[in-house]
Amino acid sequence: MAETNLQVLLRRRPQGAPVPEDFEIVERAAPEPAEGEVLVRAAYLSLDPYMRGRMSEAKSYAKPVALGAVMEGRTAGTVVASKAPGFAPGDVVAGGSGWQRFSCVKAAGLIKVDPAEAPLSANLGVLGMPGLTAWVGLEDIGQPQSGEVMVVSAASGAVGQVVGQIGRIRGCKVIGIAGGERKCRYVTEELGFDACIDHRGDLAAQLDRHCPEGIDVYWENVGGVVQAAVFPRLRDFARMVMCGVIAQYNVAEGSDSFGGAPGPNLGAVVRKRLRIQGFIVSDNGWPRYPQFRREMLGWMGDGRLRWREDVVEGLRNAPQAFIGLLEGKNFGKLVVKID
Amino acid sequence: MAETNLQVLLRRRPQGAPVPEDFEIVERAAPEPAEGEVLVRAAYLSLDPYMRGRMSEAKSYAKPVALGAVMEGRTAGTVVASKAPGFAPGDVVAGGSGWQRFSCVKAAGLIKVDPAEAPLSANLGVLGMPGLTAWVGLEDIGQPQSGEVMVVSAASGAVGQVVGQIGRIRGCKVIGIAGGERKCRYVTEELGFDACIDHRGDLAAQLDRHCPEGIDVYWENVGGVVQAAVFPRLRDFARMVMCGVIAQYNVAEGSDSFGGAPGPNLGAVVRKRLRIQGFIVSDNGWPRYPQFRREMLGWMGDGRLRWREDVVEGLRNAPQAFIGLLEGKNFGKLVVKID
Repeated sequence: MAETNLQVLLRRRPQGAPVPEDFEIVERAAPEPAEGEVLVRAAYLSLDPYMRGRMSEAKSYAKPVALGAVMEGRTAGTVVASKAPGFAPGDVVAGGSGWQRFSCVKAAGLIKVDPAEAPLSANLGVLGMPGLTAWVGLEDIGQPQSGEVMVVSAASGAVGQVVGQIGRIRGCKVIGIAGGERKCRYVTEELGFDACIDHRGDLAAQLDRHCPEGIDVYWENVGGVVQAAVFPRLRDFARMVMCGVIAQYNVAEGSDSFGGAPGPNLGAVVRKRLRIQGFIVSDNGWPRYPQFRREMLGWMGDGRLRWREDVVEGLRNAPQAFIGLLEGKNFGKLVVKID
Repeated sequence: MAETNLQVLLRRRPQGAPVPEDFEIVERAAPEPAEGEVLVRAAYLSLDPYMRGRMSEAKSYAKPVALGAVMEGRTAGTVVASKAPGFAPGDVVAGGSGWQRFSCVKAAGLIKVDPAEAPLSANLGVLGMPGLTAWVGLEDIGQPQSGEVMVVSAASGAVGQVVGQIGRIRGCKVIGIAGGERKCRYVTEELGFDACIDHRGDLAAQLDRHCPEGIDVYWENVGGVVQAAVFPRLRDFARMVMCGVIAQYNVAEGSDSFGGAPGPNLGAVVRKRLRIQGFIVSDNGWPRYPQFRREMLGWMGDGRLRWREDVVEGLRNAPQAFIGLLEGKNFGKLVVKID
């Protein structure tokens, strides 16, 4: 007898910032796995800024979620039934099963994890897509060298907190940028960044104070005024890792859904030999997941890598939590505890 | 008995576009080589856009030419006297000996070339710094793949003509951008580009016509409106090779000598996974000169690589020729025949 499924659907496409009415919460019978599929009961859902892009029809790197369909997202949970070799009831898994309690997932879309290695929810953050994003972006683009200066925007967020700590492990001086005193204190006191700047203050002056020598690696999660303050302070041969521009995601949809405001004059890119490069972790990140996980578990084990989660109780609260994420209201990796 | 030297000095720093009065032409006795030096009689002087940066005191990747000093530049000529092992009178050499007929150059700053391999002046263009610039920028950043679409600005210039022809050799569809019908015709008919767009026309419409599928590699020599038209047409994973922004070099000096006008919104860099990277050939290019020269001579030998020079007679005419270069008046690689 099928259990009751709870799902969050996309009801309509947001105009600017999403509102609760853009989502619809429904109860349905849980599905049955087809051949090659696994029925997963999700315990945690990951909420991440990229989901704003999936709600939009604007051209992007991935297809939008269809109207009336379940919102896309990664979860961590337990196998309930399996029609795929290699998976059995009770296995702990992470994968892209969406904003819902039960889902049938193809085996290729699941990672089996050892629950003894880390708390279940960590598989969505520090050991999940955001952690992998940080690791891959630094491996492929940021390439931090000992003695360099790294600046990380959205430093207390899911990706930023990992980026900065890897920067420290690699021997960089790491300056975070975050919203508000509480987050900044967390970034320095708990995560061990060398300093953290409140973006609500005078960014330029604070950057000059903390990075008088300039910036070698800038991790871009934000865009907008933060980017404008950092860009002129990049040093020769600096790398700008373009991971996201959350400040621009809620710009009302027009000719360019990511905001048509101008960016920096690129003359400095020649003069300073800058490298500005964007990436999406799903392009080439997952095949490297085992190597990433091994390295991260090592750092977590010896206390060099810490993380913070912002846990929201109940899938019905996911829309409001996601809306808050885009406004910077979360504090740490945002996850939903489904039941 | 010393022969008479002819030199072009920097008299004052230009405000905006250089004028003839910014230079001074003097006659002096030719110098004597010190231990480890070679006395070179230059036959050709290369004029290149980067020299505008050397005339300015604004912060850049290289020191400015001092007021009253000889303008910097590369020449091709003949050894007259040598106090350095490996060089003897009559040797044909290329090196950075400045805007002057005679100069003493340290052996490490000279390349000995085989005059049978190519005309002397070619060592300043297709086989010189501009050719090496094209080759290195494509090797390290552009990485053109067969079947891709490449757009080259300043396509008839010293660097652009080599870039586009290497693009064709690598199997790309290559679209040039140049100023005026005559240059465009040369780019397609002589250099074999697939098409060439006159930047004085409707750039956006012409790009849409010739690159309906978008652009994979953009070679940036120009900046300004050309960049603005190309940027939105870059495809996923496109590379933007930032070689120069000549349209911005004569902007009057203020807070940023390369022009403070805004550039493109960088949100697309994430979404399309773009790579925008600047380089300066002197950073890591010259150690690869032998490999470059070998490959270029091969292509020149079998007729796959052609080039055009714009030869100005007489060193006294170098200032006016350089002023014209910044206005796009040259047609092909600009060199001065010294006597």
